[in-house]
Amino acid sequence: MSKNAMKPQWETPAIMDQRGLAAGKIGTTHELTPERQGTYHYTIGPYSEPVMTVQPGDRVVFWTPDCFEGRIQKEDDKPSEILEMPFINPQCGPIMVEGAEKGDALAIYIESMEPRGENPRGTCCMIPEFGGLTGTNYTATLNDPLPEVVRKINLDDDNVYWSDRVTLPYKPHVGTISCSPEIDSINALTPDQHGGNMDMPDICPGNVTYLPVKVTGGRFFIGDCHACQGEGEVCGVAVEYPSVTTVRFDVIKGWQNQWPRLETENTIMTIGSARPLEDATRIAYRELVYWLVEDYGFDKWDAYMMLSQCGVAKLGNFVDPKYTIGAAIPKKYLARK
Amino acid sequence: MSKNAMKPQWETPAIMDQRGLAAGKIGTTHELTPERQGTYHYTIGPYSEPVMTVQPGDRVVFWTPDCFEGRIQKEDDKPSEILEMPFINPQCGPIMVEGAEKGDALAIYIESMEPRGENPRGTCCMIPEFGGLTGTNYTATLNDPLPEVVRKINLDDDNVYWSDRVTLPYKPHVGTISCSPEIDSINALTPDQHGGNMDMPDICPGNVTYLPVKVTGGRFFIGDCHACQGEGEVCGVAVEYPSVTTVRFDVIKGWQNQWPRLETENTIMTIGSARPLEDATRIAYRELVYWLVEDYGFDKWDAYMMLSQCGVAKLGNFVDPKYTIGAAIPKKYLARK
Amino acid sequence: MSKNAMKPQWETPAIMDQRGLAAGKIGTTHELTPERQGTYHYTIGPYSEPVMTVQPGDRVVFWTPDCFEGRIQKEDDKPSEILEMPFINPQCGPIMVEGAEKGDALAIYIESMEPRGENPRGTCCMIPEFGGLTGTNYTATLNDPLPEVVRKINLDDDNVYWSDRVTLPYKPHVGTISCSPEIDSINALTPDQHGGNMDMPDICPGNVTYLPVKVTGGRFFIGDCHACQGEGEVCGVAVEYPSVTTVRFDVIKGWQNQWPRLETENTIMTIGSARPLEDATRIAYRELVYWLVEDYGFDKWDAYMMLSQCGVAKLGNFVDPKYTIGAAIPKKYLARK
Amino acid sequence: MSKNAMKPQWETPAIMDQRGLAAGKIGTTHELTPERQGTYHYTIGPYSEPVMTVQPGDRVVFWTPDCFEGRIQKEDDKPSEILEMPFINPQCGPIMVEGAEKGDALAIYIESMEPRGENPRGTCCMIPEFGGLTGTNYTATLNDPLPEVVRKINLDDDNVYWSDRVTLPYKPHVGTISCSPEIDSINALTPDQHGGNMDMPDICPGNVTYLPVKVTGGRFFIGDCHACQGEGEVCGVAVEYPSVTTVRFDVIKGWQNQWPRLETENTIMTIGSARPLEDATRIAYRELVYWLVEDYGFDKWDAYMMLSQCGVAKLGNFVDPKYTIGAAIPKKYLARK
Repeated sequence: MSKNAMKPQWETPAIMDQRGLAAGKIGTTHELTPERQGTYHYTIGPYSEPVMTVQPGDRVVFWTPDCFEGRIQKEDDKPSEILEMPFINPQCGPIMVEGAEKGDALAIYIESMEPRGENPRGTCCMIPEFGGLTGTNYTATLNDPLPEVVRKINLDDDNVYWSDRVTLPYKPHVGTISCSPEIDSINALTPDQHGGNMDMPDICPGNVTYLPVKVTGGRFFIGDCHACQGEGEVCGVAVEYPSVTTVRFDVIKGWQNQWPRLETENTIMTIGSARPLEDATRIAYRELVYWLVEDYGFDKWDAYMMLSQCGVAKLGNFVDPKYTIGAAIPKKYLARK
Repeated sequence: MSKNAMKPQWETPAIMDQRGLAAGKIGTTHELTPERQGTYHYTIGPYSEPVMTVQPGDRVVFWTPDCFEGRIQKEDDKPSEILEMPFINPQCGPIMVEGAEKGDALAIYIESMEPRGENPRGTCCMIPEFGGLTGTNYTATLNDPLPEVVRKINLDDDNVYWSDRVTLPYKPHVGTISCSPEIDSINALTPDQHGGNMDMPDICPGNVTYLPVKVTGGRFFIGDCHACQGEGEVCGVAVEYPSVTTVRFDVIKGWQNQWPRLETENTIMTIGSARPLEDATRIAYRELVYWLVEDYGFDKWDAYMMLSQCGVAKLGNFVDPKYTIGAAIPKKYLARK
Repeated sequence: MSKNAMKPQWETPAIMDQRGLAAGKIGTTHELTPERQGTYHYTIGPYSEPVMTVQPGDRVVFWTPDCFEGRIQKEDDKPSEILEMPFINPQCGPIMVEGAEKGDALAIYIESMEPRGENPRGTCCMIPEFGGLTGTNYTATLNDPLPEVVRKINLDDDNVYWSDRVTLPYKPHVGTISCSPEIDSINALTPDQHGGNMDMPDICPGNVTYLPVKVTGGRFFIGDCHACQGEGEVCGVAVEYPSVTTVRFDVIKGWQNQWPRLETENTIMTIGSARPLEDATRIAYRELVYWLVEDYGFDKWDAYMMLSQCGVAKLGNFVDPKYTIGAAIPKKYLARK
Repeated sequence: MSKNAMKPQWETPAIMDQRGLAAGKIGTTHELTPERQGTYHYTIGPYSEPVMTVQPGDRVVFWTPDCFEGRIQKEDDKPSEILEMPFINPQCGPIMVEGAEKGDALAIYIESMEPRGENPRGTCCMIPEFGGLTGTNYTATLNDPLPEVVRKINLDDDNVYWSDRVTLPYKPHVGTISCSPEIDSINALTPDQHGGNMDMPDICPGNVTYLPVKVTGGRFFIGDCHACQGEGEVCGVAVEYPSVTTVRFDVIKGWQNQWPRLETENTIMTIGSARPLEDATRIAYRELVYWLVEDYGFDKWDAYMMLSQCGVAKLGNFVDPKYTIGAAIPKKYLARK
């Protein structure tokens, strides 16, 4: 039941279930259909109207559109004609979680992600001046842009049928997941301390994401689901698809992290987003050093040198306005003697 | 009268006066006192209440607070205790300019900048994990932060009395100047396409800044005035001071720039803000190539190679969340045969 | 026998054994003891005297010193007093491989890596202004440097006994491996197109590295062996140790790669080294696109978009003068229908 | 006589003439013709044969070739066919200066630079994957390269006749100037601590450059003269030309700088070269803080904050393998009370 577990079935309970307000208890299930959502959001901030209020322990079933809001339907569509910046990467929400206040962490356990809609429901494309191996709006060059190429892709909950030649496993994850910043409203393409468009494949069913809460209720947003994605998301686009994504919320009071954190059965991870990419890496590793010191009793320099021996670095993307790196350590090295 | 000219007294009129709706005519003078402003803004976006609506050609006298809102008053104050992030760098506005629509450029001619308040009215300081020669929130290090040092500085409209040893000329300019982004709201510390915290010393009395308009009225914000600043603003703080800053507005219809532009009597400049710093430089120079092609009839490759011989690069800051570079060319090279 | 295999025991032979001059035949075994080596090299280039000439298919047993040349012996040693820049990271070689000419690739299969010397034979330390979470010579700050901390570590061919609390698996790999550049001589701390100090954990027993040959004989250098290392080598130092490292050479004629490549049983990888880190990532992924097109018959845009779905990014280090990223794809996706 | 002064005619003597071994005395004049030079060097290091030994105070007249060694002669030449990497940017030297030892600084005063050869003796061009507004070998993209465009340019010691439309002033300077690194040999395209390809327009007649000496005699190299160049050298190429460049040497004992420094009549400057560009800026400003503390008696934090008000940043290039920034301060602020 790994694709659809109501809570982490781990030997040791997740931090969420140890320290959260709901203490592992599962509450009400809500559904956020497109009808209930109404208009999507293209910017993540404190200025939009909440669509729902839930309790710690509650579960929400999100009907997410793909990051193009379903507009790219045929392989001869031109993204540059269809997409209208900055109205891209539509987000569901905001969801208010009762009890979440500035200075807390919002815990989000992803129970399951299922594809929805008719095949070919997956979309990949090359968008002019967007992606890792092209000049962009920021890495501004005078070269002609790459061609616009659209791929429509069949997929189910086993596989992504990429081409006649290549079939990839279905590895769903959430590309964009956020709590609201305190006063900024940040477009849905940009990751930062609030989460945002991190494109981290580990934000997937079975894992728990912890986001810093900056405003009352947290104001949770979600969107941009991927049926699979490589590390770096090098062309700038994953296999984008509409999903039914079910998550369970909890609130950890007084856990004042500066950046998103993630927990899997076997690892803990900190996530940094910045430019240049080394700064994202510095952020992620520094946060991990801090975590080892604060919650696991390591000496700071011991933690720093030890991560130099067993740290794991995971590239989210290096194509967005900010780039994302996760730094992780296996839980087995965290045990106290 | 160079410090206090009602409009550019140049041999050839500014683009503003050639192409603006007001066509060089000067309108009404408005005053935005602290009382009329009410609360300041710490984020620049479309979600705040306008404080004033003006016509093209109108002039506004802004009473700007310093970037610390006057809170740092003594040399033994501790910035880390006094400043409360993200409520820093207060902005006056938003001002609505009639006739400005998405796709236009807002022209802002700075007539004059005068210091106000009692001496020592200038402030410089070292803020933990902020500045060019220290680890920061992004360039995350484990080093101990630099000490907090505060300097209170006497200044008048001739000089900045930096120390017993060094007196610097008063070279006032506006650190943060913006139109609103379309849907984002961006904290006042960050420069980007909307302008923002560019810290470009050329945004000073006698020069004209052109900002892209993304929302009706432009929604103009201003703050963060500096009595002087070096290129790069290396410690992260200029000589910050409260000012009376007088600007004249105009609207250039259909001038769809992607990034801020600036005009002085003798040069034109494009301004890019990004990380890493080479990307800011790329943006600025690419925009300048585009400008030479579109408005001055140069061939693209001729413009590119010629800027390689006579382009001028001006570093705004390399300390903010994004770094700022201006690329300029003397007007004398733009003449048509 | 995975730790000590004479050649890759893979279902499909390695590229080395398919396309190399030796065609999988194993030749003579040579031994490069410290006595035969004489003085080590701290710079990798065409100006040093070869220590040995071997044939394709030959095997060399290298007695590598640790990257500190064994000078850090006690936990109260001060690296800043003991190490004398730029005489650091001693390299064995150069080895001339018969038949290798400019435009070829040198294949290096690592058969085995065994620790040598008395315990505690492992060394880790924090060196002032060196590492990922500190100001450095390049990321120049005014912060006080981090403390100098030395760790002497027991290790054997099963484990690295990091601390009372943590035992890590022995995962040996070669930190610095190079062919000579054509005219430059590059210090042993810097990775680049020639290989160099890549600190890529996948350059380990059982895998094959392919380096561009720029001068006759290739002029192969090796050193800087690690008993284990995390991704990123965040403190700048791995578990450094003296090793007996056995490699087998071959030459692939006319394989003109611009950057190092690597082959494991299940993946192929390209390796880029540059600053900022996104440039290393761009290099690695572009080389991988080229490889998929040239040797595996993929369409360029298909390869680019497909790597966006199944590419694997591996961070070598982000602490050296240049940073290193590997981009990989599982071989299973390369099969032709 | 500013274009051809035998020594700095400044009110206060240059550091060179105050602290150098020759104490301002002018010695013998030597001439390094192409015949005496023989083959040029494409890499700067300790492994080449000296062409000349001179005394402190001596003057050398260099006949420098242009950076293409005169191979690009017509506007329909194709740089990609004519240039053979890495044999580009030919350097004259090495010159041994008596008395220069590791730990000293070599002072180089440029007396004059005159064009030589027939017109059109200036060359500019666009080289595939080289320059500031294009994908490059490092900023690796899949875009088609920019076109190859060659410009042959008439110039004399007054003007550079860029086009029918634009005439630029002759502002000669030395693009590449170096002492040898200690053990590395660095290609002539890359700037670093040894100097190298800094492309800093201030390294021009009338100014003094100070380079760190790492090997006996300093081993001085020079080449890559420019008739003019914009800040940033955005297309990657200046107006390249063959010159007769006359310099005077001196040695400052025990002045152990880590990076090049420069002195003009009115300013002192430190020069950093690194990637990303903010690191070059950090290096330059940190060195300038150190200089103000060591030689001018400023308090470190006072110097840091004061440079934030009056520092000048000068972009050399952002197109080479490393980027170059100079940080300067007017001498008038250095006076002691």
